[in-house]
Amino acid sequence: MTIIKTIEKLKQTIRQTKGSIGFVPTMGALHEGHISLIKKARLENDVVVVSIFINPTQFLAGEDLDKYPKKQEADEKICEFSGVDILFTPNINTMYSQDEVLIKAPILKSYTLEGQRRPEHFDGVLRIVLKLFNLVQPTNAYFGKKDAQQLSLIKQMVDDLFLDVNIIECEIIRQKDGLALSSRNVYLDNKQRQLALNISLSLRIASDMVAKHNMDCEKIIEAMKKVMDSLDIEYIAIVDRKFEKLDFCELKNTIILVAVKIDKIRLIDNIWI
Amino acid sequence: MTIIKTIEKLKQTIRQTKGSIGFVPTMGALHEGHISLIKKARLENDVVVVSIFINPTQFLAGEDLDKYPKKQEADEKICEFSGVDILFTPNINTMYSQDEVLIKAPILKSYTLEGQRRPEHFDGVLRIVLKLFNLVQPTNAYFGKKDAQQLSLIKQMVDDLFLDVNIIECEIIRQKDGLALSSRNVYLDNKQRQLALNISLSLRIASDMVAKHNMDCEKIIEAMKKVMDSLDIEYIAIVDRKFEKLDFCELKNTIILVAVKIDKIRLIDNIWI
Repeated sequence: MTIIKTIEKLKQTIRQTKGSIGFVPTMGALHEGHISLIKKARLENDVVVVSIFINPTQFLAGEDLDKYPKKQEADEKICEFSGVDILFTPNINTMYSQDEVLIKAPILKSYTLEGQRRPEHFDGVLRIVLKLFNLVQPTNAYFGKKDAQQLSLIKQMVDDLFLDVNIIECEIIRQKDGLALSSRNVYLDNKQRQLALNISLSLRIASDMVAKHNMDCEKIIEAMKKVMDSLDIEYIAIVDRKFEKLDFCELKNTIILVAVKIDKIRLIDNIWI
Repeated sequence: MTIIKTIEKLKQTIRQTKGSIGFVPTMGALHEGHISLIKKARLENDVVVVSIFINPTQFLAGEDLDKYPKKQEADEKICEFSGVDILFTPNINTMYSQDEVLIKAPILKSYTLEGQRRPEHFDGVLRIVLKLFNLVQPTNAYFGKKDAQQLSLIKQMVDDLFLDVNIIECEIIRQKDGLALSSRNVYLDNKQRQLALNISLSLRIASDMVAKHNMDCEKIIEAMKKVMDSLDIEYIAIVDRKFEKLDFCELKNTIILVAVKIDKIRLIDNIWI
């Protein structure tokens, strides 16, 4: 595995690369969720590139940019063991300069749900993803379904800007008790973690209702709220794959999303139906 | 020469292309200025792609979008005779959709000079150029120095977003009497055209002053204003190659810019020193 820190070295290495490139952009603190993306990339491509960059432009003032978990050594080992060829770990000044060209996420779709709580968050996400795509020039890029709205907006950016990359949607990885993996789970103490299990439980209950042909979104949300009555729910939303709000679930075209706060820790989860 | 109107056909054709691609994006109404770009692209690349697209997002409300000169047949012939391989002529719905990802030009550099008179103009320019670059995937892209601020911002976009394309700066082409070629020159009647000659005359006088080591920008601007006293001057500016305002001209690092209005016709011109 080659670890690259500079743009010039990365460009040069990519130029010499032959065959398909699978790319997994991350913010580090790698867990089984990331590893599943890397393994899929490894299976489907000649060359696997992972980036680790805690992207400041997608954090809002007051968010957890400074305390976002950093695990450089462990991350490098995980990448090495998972068969990564190129690990790109740029610093901030490498990726950004002053008075730059900016990316604005589509207004209607980026200021709802996550974007309503985190205005301009998706501008920062798309900006860094576009830069990384242009540098790495991947054939396939791998994103988890856990950040469903992010995934949807990245797919839209690929369409809108005519980018030449396939976006591969990857399943959410959960612990045995149902908790969706997230780098932010390390913030949870035992009691908080126990409370957090109600999130995935509510999604299983929603999914069971749909399996029994209860498609009415209002009723599904009602049932989910009951399960999560001990949590500070930010939103429950039922949308189609294009993130348009649904009144009735549609098979193979529905995403049920949850965001909650446990004390100051924000957790999101979802299920694709 | 292949004329292509759809994204799918263009993508497919580009995928099959071998060797270097030279790209000349235009809004049609081709004149000797464009032809000089195409000829340079022809000399320096295996494949030459020209696009003709009157880009609505770079026109402001009240500007000349609707009456912008259209010369489809002549343009096609010019491209054919100039050795173009692929002519891309998409329609508006091909290039844009609703609620898109947007590009914002860098604030400080895009709201001065042209951008001060035409706010958001450069957002639209960068947006379409980025889309076209992603579609055509050029090795080299050719832009005239006449739109100097545009050229500078496109170069900055390439740097900021790490685009893999060389921007080739091409000389301004002038008529024998000095008038810089522009598709908008067709709007000028004889009297207006005569007045317009003072623009390039003022630039020659400025350049003569520098040749005689008169580097003081204030004095140069003073002299230029005298020459153009019969014109409605929008701005005279002396900047370095990065579009930072200069007090004293620097050899090989100065651009002197003029924008005037003759009745309702806006004309710009500049000289690189």
